[in-house]
Amino acid sequence: TVDADRLWRSLMDLAEIGAYDDERTGLRGVNRLALTDADAAGRRQVIAWMEDAGLAVRVDRMGNIYGRREGTDPTAAPVLTGSHIDSVATAGAFDGCLGVLGGIEVVRTLDERGIVTRRPIEVGVFTEEEGVRFGTDMLGSAVAAGRLTLGYAHGLTDRDGRTLGDELARTGFDGPADVRLDPPYAYVECHIEQGPVLAENGVGIGVVTGVQGISWQEITVHGRAAHAGTTPTRLRADAGLAAAEIIVRLRAMVDSGEYGELRATVGHLTVHPDLTNIVPARAELTVDLRNPDDAAMARAEEDLSAFLRELEDARPGLTLSTRRMAGTAYVPFDETVQKVIAGAADDHGLAHISLLSGAGHDAQEIAALCPTAMIFVRGEHDGISHNPREYSTPEACARGVDVLATTLLRLADQ
Amino acid sequence: TVDADRLWRSLMDLAEIGAYDDERTGLRGVNRLALTDADAAGRRQVIAWMEDAGLAVRVDRMGNIYGRREGTDPTAAPVLTGSHIDSVATAGAFDGCLGVLGGIEVVRTLDERGIVTRRPIEVGVFTEEEGVRFGTDMLGSAVAAGRLTLGYAHGLTDRDGRTLGDELARTGFDGPADVRLDPPYAYVECHIEQGPVLAENGVGIGVVTGVQGISWQEITVHGRAAHAGTTPTRLRADAGLAAAEIIVRLRAMVDSGEYGELRATVGHLTVHPDLTNIVPARAELTVDLRNPDDAAMARAEEDLSAFLRELEDARPGLTLSTRRMAGTAYVPFDETVQKVIAGAADDHGLAHISLLSGAGHDAQEIAALCPTAMIFVRGEHDGISHNPREYSTPEACARGVDVLATTLLRLADQ
Ligand SMILES: NC(=O)NCCC(=O)O
Ligand SMILES: NC(=O)NCCC(=O)O
Repeated sequence: TVDADRLWRSLMDLAEIGAYDDERTGLRGVNRLALTDADAAGRRQVIAWMEDAGLAVRVDRMGNIYGRREGTDPTAAPVLTGSHIDSVATAGAFDGCLGVLGGIEVVRTLDERGIVTRRPIEVGVFTEEEGVRFGTDMLGSAVAAGRLTLGYAHGLTDRDGRTLGDELARTGFDGPADVRLDPPYAYVECHIEQGPVLAENGVGIGVVTGVQGISWQEITVHGRAAHAGTTPTRLRADAGLAAAEIIVRLRAMVDSGEYGELRATVGHLTVHPDLTNIVPARAELTVDLRNPDDAAMARAEEDLSAFLRELEDARPGLTLSTRRMAGTAYVPFDETVQKVIAGAADDHGLAHISLLSGAGHDAQEIAALCPTAMIFVRGEHDGISHNPREYSTPEACARGVDVLATTLLRLADQ
Repeated sequence: TVDADRLWRSLMDLAEIGAYDDERTGLRGVNRLALTDADAAGRRQVIAWMEDAGLAVRVDRMGNIYGRREGTDPTAAPVLTGSHIDSVATAGAFDGCLGVLGGIEVVRTLDERGIVTRRPIEVGVFTEEEGVRFGTDMLGSAVAAGRLTLGYAHGLTDRDGRTLGDELARTGFDGPADVRLDPPYAYVECHIEQGPVLAENGVGIGVVTGVQGISWQEITVHGRAAHAGTTPTRLRADAGLAAAEIIVRLRAMVDSGEYGELRATVGHLTVHPDLTNIVPARAELTVDLRNPDDAAMARAEEDLSAFLRELEDARPGLTLSTRRMAGTAYVPFDETVQKVIAGAADDHGLAHISLLSGAGHDAQEIAALCPTAMIFVRGEHDGISHNPREYSTPEACARGVDVLATTLLRLADQ
């Protein structure tokens, strides 16, 4: 078992980097968007902890960080663990950080016990997992795994037009290491569940069977600015109304039950010129769809597109365009690695269930390179996440990292 | 008749102050929000033209500007004309400016002809008519007429938290003159129609019978930030969805025909934290309602409030609050002044119709002090306004100011 206090202290220390006081909840939140100054400070702290734990640190051209603990067999592929430390703008302390700091805590524990493994163990920290700054999630791990190119990633821009490539250079995280990862022996990521399923089932540990499909697109509606008082309704091309109709339609699609377990979210929404007495000339919104069933997801995407065309046809003066931001199919995890995780939980006497991940994770990208699975840790408050109320108890975090330690040990000795 | 070229040149010159290149239309637009640097520069230009025309200029504590041409009877109340030069952020060259520059053009014409009137003639320029920076429209004229207090107006803030009082001081337009206007003998305002009615009726001049009711409110929806991938739909309190439902409902209310000639616009809409994979925790929107029928307007407001309460009840975790921004009932204009305007148009051989104004105007505030009416000038492109496509021909503008000149002359000799 790992040192629960030390793990907790590192989680709380990291959460102070990019911390803010959340007006609404009265809580302390975390705002550490990828490659901001706060993220860079967090990265430097993590690297310092890695070096204290004796890890050899390398940074690749995507800013992904790897800390390596050698094994006895220099020819053996390493077992990789890790996650991310970038956050959304209204985050808690756990999303991603538990996997990174948990990995470092495992290394500290092995060192204390004088345990040497056959295979190297590496702890990875992936860039822009959240995807909220540059628009594509799991970006660093997707480039490491070869699904997306370095050029694509470097060229992505944030809302102020800054490119990821420039921000890597600015923060000093445009490392020299090759971004394409040599296939590890296996990858195991420990992460908070970010949902209610473990709590509803009264268990603390989840063995993750895979990640549901994710579809992100941006829709831009062009209408016509017009005077709110004088313009007859029939002459309007109201971009904001069209955006609202899309949002309401998405909810109706979810509620219809016709798309399996579809979830739909419009998280980003702006209108222009954004003034009280002007019919919006332009609206921009993002659509985040999730579905464990790829066929149902495809139908949802098609039916949404058809609805956009209908809107255009029904409203003279409106044009709608879409831009794909991110898209991943359902990713199943490796059954053997799942069994090792389940066995480790059993050895620690911890109740567990198997479940699918609702959120995207770096593990789904690394799964293209090697056998991969994840350990989920229960969250409080219905598992709320991407919110300062996100919370897992010190006990829950430590038990998850215990399972991670045992899993990594087993795999590293294979 | 006035000098059409000189009037047009002044309109085009003023439009260069705060001009921008509009990406969407490829046209040159105007962005001269009240008490910005651009507005201050526009004000200085207008004052210079007033002084060139021999007017005695005074600025009051609301930044309202008056230029006065004396008459022969020093005891007679003046005839007032004017409008505003502040604009929305995506404006054309005519809204408000035609009334101000038209008034100055009338004075120039009287001077050239050596015409002296019995009553003084004053040209007024009212502050923050648009209401889009500080949230309340017809603000300067409403304070001049005593409907709103100076303290209320000075305390209003823009989106960056700057108060109107501070912005008056910063731009140097916190004048010494008393803001409460001594009742003029009459008020006449020339303005572009900003709507399609004159064009549809094939005439160039409108005699305005009054202004429909205007209701502005801001709605804030508080929900709960949550993860887009993991949060089951039933556990969401989605502030953005609620905002969208309000927008769609408003359109349904308009289309129902149950609220007379209701128009409804949501021009301002933001969500927070505004990120792809986060269910919005908060949404803010403005609702602009217009109605020529006060009873139908009251019903629309009540039914909207009831809908907001229903939304709150139906969605645990959502709270909605509203803030009144502005509200004016239907304002009828003076029939005698309307007759003088109609007679002046007849004398110029110009076809005209009577119509109600869809937009709010300073005239509806000054109407509380003295007999008041307005002259409307036809716009092209369905009378589109609050848009760089806003356009009235040089001919149409000059003919409107001809009618203004004759109307002012008649009233000033009564
Ligand atoms: N774990 C997590 O929050 N990932 C961000 C990508 C997503 O939105 O699912
Ligand atoms: N004329 C004009 O655009 N006034 C602004 C106030 C309104 O929205 O009606």
